[in-house]
Amino acid sequence: MENTAQSLRIDGARLWASLMEMARIGATPAGGCNRQALTDEDKQGRDLFLQWCREIGCEVRIDRMGNIFVRRAGSEPDAPPVVTGSHLDTQPTGGKFDGVYGVLAGLEVLRTLEDQGVRTRASLELVVWTNEEGARFSPAMIGSGVWAGEFSLEYGHGRADKSGATIGEELRRIGYLGEEPAEPKPIAAAFEVHIEQGPILEKKNEVIGVVTGVQGIRWYDVTFHGTPCHAGPTPMADRRDPVQALALLCERLYSEVKAYSDDARMTCGDLRAEPGSRNTVPEKVALALDLRHPQPEGLEHLHRTLYRMADQVEEATGVAIDVREEWHSPPVVFDSQCIEAVDDAAKALGCSHRKMVSGAGHDSVYVSRVAPVSMIFVPCAGGLSHNEAESAEPDHLEAGCNVLLQAMLARAGTAS
Amino acid sequence: MENTAQSLRIDGARLWASLMEMARIGATPAGGCNRQALTDEDKQGRDLFLQWCREIGCEVRIDRMGNIFVRRAGSEPDAPPVVTGSHLDTQPTGGKFDGVYGVLAGLEVLRTLEDQGVRTRASLELVVWTNEEGARFSPAMIGSGVWAGEFSLEYGHGRADKSGATIGEELRRIGYLGEEPAEPKPIAAAFEVHIEQGPILEKKNEVIGVVTGVQGIRWYDVTFHGTPCHAGPTPMADRRDPVQALALLCERLYSEVKAYSDDARMTCGDLRAEPGSRNTVPEKVALALDLRHPQPEGLEHLHRTLYRMADQVEEATGVAIDVREEWHSPPVVFDSQCIEAVDDAAKALGCSHRKMVSGAGHDSVYVSRVAPVSMIFVPCAGGLSHNEAESAEPDHLEAGCNVLLQAMLARAGTAS
Repeated sequence: MENTAQSLRIDGARLWASLMEMARIGATPAGGCNRQALTDEDKQGRDLFLQWCREIGCEVRIDRMGNIFVRRAGSEPDAPPVVTGSHLDTQPTGGKFDGVYGVLAGLEVLRTLEDQGVRTRASLELVVWTNEEGARFSPAMIGSGVWAGEFSLEYGHGRADKSGATIGEELRRIGYLGEEPAEPKPIAAAFEVHIEQGPILEKKNEVIGVVTGVQGIRWYDVTFHGTPCHAGPTPMADRRDPVQALALLCERLYSEVKAYSDDARMTCGDLRAEPGSRNTVPEKVALALDLRHPQPEGLEHLHRTLYRMADQVEEATGVAIDVREEWHSPPVVFDSQCIEAVDDAAKALGCSHRKMVSGAGHDSVYVSRVAPVSMIFVPCAGGLSHNEAESAEPDHLEAGCNVLLQAMLARAGTAS
Repeated sequence: MENTAQSLRIDGARLWASLMEMARIGATPAGGCNRQALTDEDKQGRDLFLQWCREIGCEVRIDRMGNIFVRRAGSEPDAPPVVTGSHLDTQPTGGKFDGVYGVLAGLEVLRTLEDQGVRTRASLELVVWTNEEGARFSPAMIGSGVWAGEFSLEYGHGRADKSGATIGEELRRIGYLGEEPAEPKPIAAAFEVHIEQGPILEKKNEVIGVVTGVQGIRWYDVTFHGTPCHAGPTPMADRRDPVQALALLCERLYSEVKAYSDDARMTCGDLRAEPGSRNTVPEKVALALDLRHPQPEGLEHLHRTLYRMADQVEEATGVAIDVREEWHSPPVVFDSQCIEAVDDAAKALGCSHRKMVSGAGHDSVYVSRVAPVSMIFVPCAGGLSHNEAESAEPDHLEAGCNVLLQAMLARAGTAS
């Protein structure tokens, strides 16, 4: 039976077809997807996914955060399950693969076992986590975060989008506010397969990333408080112009981040001036800032540099700068046995592979707090992600899914 | 009769009361006004103004751009009139005096003449110009601009706000789309009284600015086109980040503008990132830029510097920068006889005064293309304007209005 299981292969064409069918929901004219968390499109995506799960006879549970758990029972139903999963929500101008691939690869694993009549010893569970992107509701990964105990359920339900709608209200509205408590049960091992979202595998011409951990992330809301005045009469020296302060701080911080380490990241994803009238110096400018580093000391250095430079720019410009930390996800090191399971599967399948640290946060970060975890990366074209042009090779997606299948089988065992 | 006219004085308390009554329309919690062009609040302000004009028996005409002309006939009704006026619209977080003072000071002049039974030789006209601020509809001063022939009526009617509503539609909606052609008739002289909107008179402890001209203004829409990518995995060196380009260009341009001349101005009034998600490098950043200088060659230098630096930053960052000029109002020199009339009136009234160039654009810029014009400035607290805290001393407002009265009488003459 073990030999049979190791020779199992997923149906790459069926995986691709599922990805393309899901991509129609929230499709954008530029070829991407806009299926933000808990919108009507997210509901349609979830509905389609559940229809596919029902077709292979799996049991479905939904928790209080709208996380979906799809279970294929093993021969020892009380043994802790082996889990895989990711998310169906996208960025506003997102692609067809980020998150969705991990969900539909997990579905393809379950379909393959069902097709071949293979029963695992431990049960398998496939999870769809709510609001991984953090685009509509901040912070990111909040479905897995509440489930893992990082945030309270009240905090999770209360997070609001820009229009004021909360996660709790939106879950109820789209019919995905489940009954199950959002909290973990024992898990034997968890795996998540994902496009790399960076350029390294493509550049190195390798197919599989064996992910050993995730870099640390800190999010900040930075507000520059100026004094509105008329664009004409007020001499430059008499102004407290929040855009001057923004430009100076960003210019210095970008330089420092680039000089500090090739592993450091700085992203200014959102920027807004108020009141936003061309001939008035703005009253304030709001900046959403994201800093990342794989080592705790590196991330701490970036954090301190931000505060120090904000003080210096405040001093230099007279513009009050309020730096508020919104979220902190420390660097994560994954489980050595799970990493080994992925590494072994890649070797056994003859896939070129390398160990690497994830630059992006993933639900696996929170899952890793309560269970042994690793991840599997496949290349994406040009390293582009969070972009409507995001794309990946069908062969690579198939290879990643086969690695996932083998790693899950290795940890779950097959019924003798 | 000349002696009587020269001893006429306006009622400062009544002027102040009118200003405070108008300020209730669109009043903001912070003590300012939000009465943007062609909104319901603008309609209420116009209605109140017309009610006051009717009380003193003046004839009212409204043109195709919604500009309001209030006429007090002189003893020679066919002689070209002496004109004054300004605007009733405000910035989104505007004050109680910008524009409104010029309109209600003109009203106070007409009321004073009516009270005292003084008839002028030439007729007097008081004008309310549409959308001076340019906050809701770009460009600024479009009511006077169409009237003076700078823009076509079609262009004026077609300008849209951020929601897509056009000036033509909004004029019709609030009932101020008049029948009269928006085009000039002969004018003997025109004056506009306004708060300075800058700190100079207050710093010099002077009451009246005799305005000899207006600095030149150029408006630009600057768009930075980046490549969206995920905030984590993509190395900084591989990014085309529009915020990096924005910060670099603004930082360099601010430095250059400050170093070039104390008379140069640079304002970044609006700033917007798209799609605006914290963990995605933005696809684009849009900047609304305003450059000013009192001399044509100075403004030309700033203009060329902008284009040169944009090229350099594009080269340095790989971010495509599109600089589109949206509006150009060259420096203006006012009419020497009108300037003299203001200067003489300030002297005769014993007001401390100085000649100065306006830093702000005003409807008088366009009026000056078809008529002899000057302006009168009074101090405002801290030089603040386009700010809800905008304030001015009742004594200064009264003095400015008396200078306006005497300058108008000097140019119109009194009926013998």
